Amino acid sequence: MGRKRVPAGELFQAALDGDRSSLARLLSLIERGDDEAREVGRLAYPLSGEGYTVGLTGAPGAGKSTLTSAVIRHLRSLDLEIAVLAIDPSSPFTGGAILGDRVRMQDHATDPGVFIRSMATRGHLGGLSLATPEAVRALDAIGRKWILVETVGVGQVEVEVAGKADTTVVVVNPGWGDSVQANKAGLMEIADVFVINKADRKGVDETKRDLMQMLDLSDLPHDAYRPPIIATVGTTGEGIVDLWDAVLAHRAYAESSGVLAERRTFRLREELREIIAQRLGRKARQLCTGERWDELTDEVVDRTTDPWTAADEMLAGIDA
Amino acid sequence: MGRKRVPAGELFQAALDGDRSSLARLLSLIERGDDEAREVGRLAYPLSGEGYTVGLTGAPGAGKSTLTSAVIRHLRSLDLEIAVLAIDPSSPFTGGAILGDRVRMQDHATDPGVFIRSMATRGHLGGLSLATPEAVRALDAIGRKWILVETVGVGQVEVEVAGKADTTVVVVNPGWGDSVQANKAGLMEIADVFVINKADRKGVDETKRDLMQMLDLSDLPHDAYRPPIIATVGTTGEGIVDLWDAVLAHRAYAESSGVLAERRTFRLREELREIIAQRLGRKARQLCTGERWDELTDEVVDRTTDPWTAADEMLAGIDA
Repeated sequence: MGRKRVPAGELFQAALDGDRSSLARLLSLIERGDDEAREVGRLAYPLSGEGYTVGLTGAPGAGKSTLTSAVIRHLRSLDLEIAVLAIDPSSPFTGGAILGDRVRMQDHATDPGVFIRSMATRGHLGGLSLATPEAVRALDAIGRKWILVETVGVGQVEVEVAGKADTTVVVVNPGWGDSVQANKAGLMEIADVFVINKADRKGVDETKRDLMQMLDLSDLPHDAYRPPIIATVGTTGEGIVDLWDAVLAHRAYAESSGVLAERRTFRLREELREIIAQRLGRKARQLCTGERWDELTDEVVDRTTDPWTAADEMLAGIDA
Repeated sequence: MGRKRVPAGELFQAALDGDRSSLARLLSLIERGDDEAREVGRLAYPLSGEGYTVGLTGAPGAGKSTLTSAVIRHLRSLDLEIAVLAIDPSSPFTGGAILGDRVRMQDHATDPGVFIRSMATRGHLGGLSLATPEAVRALDAIGRKWILVETVGVGQVEVEVAGKADTTVVVVNPGWGDSVQANKAGLMEIADVFVINKADRKGVDETKRDLMQMLDLSDLPHDAYRPPIIATVGTTGEGIVDLWDAVLAHRAYAESSGVLAERRTFRLREELREIIAQRLGRKARQLCTGERWDELTDEVVDRTTDPWTAADEMLAGIDA
């Protein structure tokens, strides 16, 4: 980087004071997922909890970035301060790099009320499943009340990341069927709001019928809440107000019904489980290297000890 | 089971003394992979090392069981005592059950010089990748000098299990190409001997040419050893002597070149690595349950503690 190394605590304080470049560096720390990232997590956690995350997911080419950009414009017109995390599980590139059609979001680059950040896995041990909630909490802690999390793709990983939002918007296009065939069930499960974007093309009614049918056939309990289907044109902004109203309606339902509290509790437990699994996995890798490891494996090969006794010795004190 | 529970040590001693039903029960213990299995492993390890394993693998329908049966007949005619492990990664059934065409091997059921056992994953924590070498060592420890390990299928798992033998025989049929297309590279890598079984059908020459071409194109170092290609007809026994001579030739090469020692060392290191990973994985599952886990996750949800501090507490003493 060539830049002076600043302790995580100082970076965090500067970000709290509104310094955007410190915030960017903080998120780079989180992306790396090392001990400093843990430190950021500890600082951010008690200050977070007020922010609300809205996930946007859909197949590549569905127009998510344009849609996100239109949503940003709408929220800024309401004078809301927001943050956007653009997650790309398949990309090795990060914040600094130009991410294809993310360029469109550069419209908001000079607006201090908008903070946009691209994230990739980089070196994070736990991958995006641990880095994303950490990044969300940092943005939450510095006072962003709305955090949009955009994920590219419709694979298992993307759906998992997207499904961790408080409200999840699934973006499809007219005639979407084939492009997401493989993971329709996964998308149905996480969708709180459906958007048919590029609704100026033909096939909107069929797609709507298709989605309604799938909702009818799904096992979801629809008595209290049924995901609405909103038609939008991201490029013109058509339908964006309806989309945002649908998000607000889902939020109101989730808050009053206890669904939000349930989801967050579930997510935190999953995250804690994953942190523990990751750390024990790292421990396993540490144990299976070094001088003692070499000695013990030699002893097993020479049959002066057996694999279970060797494992006992490597795991001494761990009671595993 | 309804049978009296016999301590692992007693079972092992009885198996050493030649009691077949004790040996069968010992292998059931190993299949379960619990603490008693570990105990068996500790007892068997120092007594093992003399046995030699020959893996037989190939697509379903390639005639492996018939071929194995013919090999057994040949080895019995040489007065060799042998054991056969028939591994079926996809089957929930085990030793006691009748396993499709394994029935053919029942020819040898009354021969005390042959011990045949089917194995499936059942409940073993580490799956067949840990249960198979443990079972092999038990058979080795009780004095079987030749252990045939037959695996069904050509998937990743089967190839991995098969590739852990001292000599691996890959069984194909004339016109085999399509059936194993997906995993040709994996099979090429583990094959020490190729067998074209059902060689009374047409297409043997083409298949031989095909295999030779693949061997020429592969990265394997062929200066010292090149896998031979043997044509057999399992049902008549044709070519079985050639097959066994090829196994003996590979064994001689592997022993004199140091390849055998290398392979065994590599396998033991991999196994130890896996034992440690499995035990830490189990530890992770243990940690993420129980009263303390519930309390800590509640504290995280209430934000009286953060996930990293909670993880630290769960992992106290482990230094992970």
